[in-house]
Amino acid sequence: MDSPWHSCIDSDLAECERLMMKTLQFENKELTEMCQYVIASGGKRLRPSLCILSYYACGGKDQRTPVSVGSAFEIVHSASLIHDDINDQGEIRRGRKTLHKKYTMTKAIIAGDVMFSMGFDLLKNVGPEVVGYIIEASAAMGSGEFVQKDYEHASGVTEDHYMKIISGKTAKIFEACAKSGAFTGGGSPEEIHALGENSFHLGLAFQIIDDMLDVSGDPEKTGKLIGTDLLEGKPTLPTIYAMQDPVYGKELQDIFEEPEASLESVRKALELIKKTDSLDRCYKKACEISSSAKKFLGDIPDSVYKTSLLNLADYVVSRKR
Amino acid sequence: MDSPWHSCIDSDLAECERLMMKTLQFENKELTEMCQYVIASGGKRLRPSLCILSYYACGGKDQRTPVSVGSAFEIVHSASLIHDDINDQGEIRRGRKTLHKKYTMTKAIIAGDVMFSMGFDLLKNVGPEVVGYIIEASAAMGSGEFVQKDYEHASGVTEDHYMKIISGKTAKIFEACAKSGAFTGGGSPEEIHALGENSFHLGLAFQIIDDMLDVSGDPEKTGKLIGTDLLEGKPTLPTIYAMQDPVYGKELQDIFEEPEASLESVRKALELIKKTDSLDRCYKKACEISSSAKKFLGDIPDSVYKTSLLNLADYVVSRKR
Repeated sequence: MDSPWHSCIDSDLAECERLMMKTLQFENKELTEMCQYVIASGGKRLRPSLCILSYYACGGKDQRTPVSVGSAFEIVHSASLIHDDINDQGEIRRGRKTLHKKYTMTKAIIAGDVMFSMGFDLLKNVGPEVVGYIIEASAAMGSGEFVQKDYEHASGVTEDHYMKIISGKTAKIFEACAKSGAFTGGGSPEEIHALGENSFHLGLAFQIIDDMLDVSGDPEKTGKLIGTDLLEGKPTLPTIYAMQDPVYGKELQDIFEEPEASLESVRKALELIKKTDSLDRCYKKACEISSSAKKFLGDIPDSVYKTSLLNLADYVVSRKR
Repeated sequence: MDSPWHSCIDSDLAECERLMMKTLQFENKELTEMCQYVIASGGKRLRPSLCILSYYACGGKDQRTPVSVGSAFEIVHSASLIHDDINDQGEIRRGRKTLHKKYTMTKAIIAGDVMFSMGFDLLKNVGPEVVGYIIEASAAMGSGEFVQKDYEHASGVTEDHYMKIISGKTAKIFEACAKSGAFTGGGSPEEIHALGENSFHLGLAFQIIDDMLDVSGDPEKTGKLIGTDLLEGKPTLPTIYAMQDPVYGKELQDIFEEPEASLESVRKALELIKKTDSLDRCYKKACEISSSAKKFLGDIPDSVYKTSLLNLADYVVSRKR
């Protein structure tokens, strides 16, 4: 790829950074500091990107709209990460201390709540449809996390359960970003649907790769420790596939079911997974889904933004190693 | 008082109950159960009442609007209580187990987040002004809670700090309810302001009495254990005033500064507070504020709804014993 997939929206993304920092300013200095700490720790900004690309792909012209909506989604997403990190007792996020470790759990819960509100604030002038999209995604996110909790340390978890979990956790929000962009960009119902499906599938592929990186990633690049999903007993596709292996599956199941796995067990589990064909199967699955994401763009008129979405589908699965 | 202050809006409040339960229905059964558990545990529904009364006091005619907006505020408030209870490690709320004790902390955090979203969902068709009111209140709530945390176990806390804490924690949300009701009911800017100030002051008086009940309330009636604020080192007006007492103040300060006060210390502290004139001073303060709340209604046209707001000001301080 000559230029990165996002080069055509770099100025919009820079605007998002400015707007997010501006939005998260409060009378209380510490609250401001905490919210800005979370935003400033970066991330790939995929959610605003999907919103902005879908907006322009439908012919939207005014930069302010997708920048507001995209920033809203990123702020709400960041708020959910704060609460996720508390729930998972995560210590490191994007290479930095998680918010509740740097401050306190109490203040982190409150800061998360305030960020939720501020995210919705950015949507208040955009109309009820967009609020509807984000709410639908939020409810799905809650349901997805409930299913995830129910299958922690449960070796009976299936690929279907996993798809339901990652739909709610990641893909529905990706879809909502794209639909919000497409809707505000003046897209037809068909275009809104197509761009929504495109991002939904990108979200699935993205999450599968993300879960693979927990097994085989380079912590220097991902900013995350390896094996944390296993340590927490989170059901992910690499584990699910590997547990099906006729030779190594049973031993892995036993480790996965340990309520308090030791670091030694986790190391062993990672080794076992790598001995199976699980990561290859996961990668193949992610590539299939990413290809199907592209197909949804068939009837979207050609533009640099459509090309960018196509490149994004390749980028998502290129994070493999 | 012949009939209770809310009798003129009882049918609206019943509609709120129905709408809240309907709104909190999800594909995930457990999520539905959790959210409905919180709503079904009742409460005084003051926030929807302020919204509905202010709406009708401004001449609003359509029941659906204040019922939606009032329900939205109650749902968002309930969501914040879930997170509060986690932060305070509260075990009992309204005479029942708190959500994170009945289920798990993780699921309670998620359920709270989902409820926030659903609250905003009910506001999506009401227009950006109302979203603006609730967001402003949410940010103030966050700030208020930060100040509260900063003065936990700190005997240097002043009445000014306390007023800032309860403004954010309670009064600003009361104000937002009333302003949202008045705005959607077609009130003039002066009416919106007056009804907002009325509810803001009701909120202050309400919170002072609530904090008194933590010292002198009857757990059978309040549904709450006594002395929990002291146990958690929360700065409240009864403690602040009592710490100023020339005879008993010093001993109370020492107990308040204990980072992990024993139940014995808390019992002692409650005794000390009751030996001072603190509760009388608190009650006088609450009555003054409640009276000033009434004065803001001077230019609002007479109606059963205005009378109800006036009666509510009396009710708020009648909870004393």
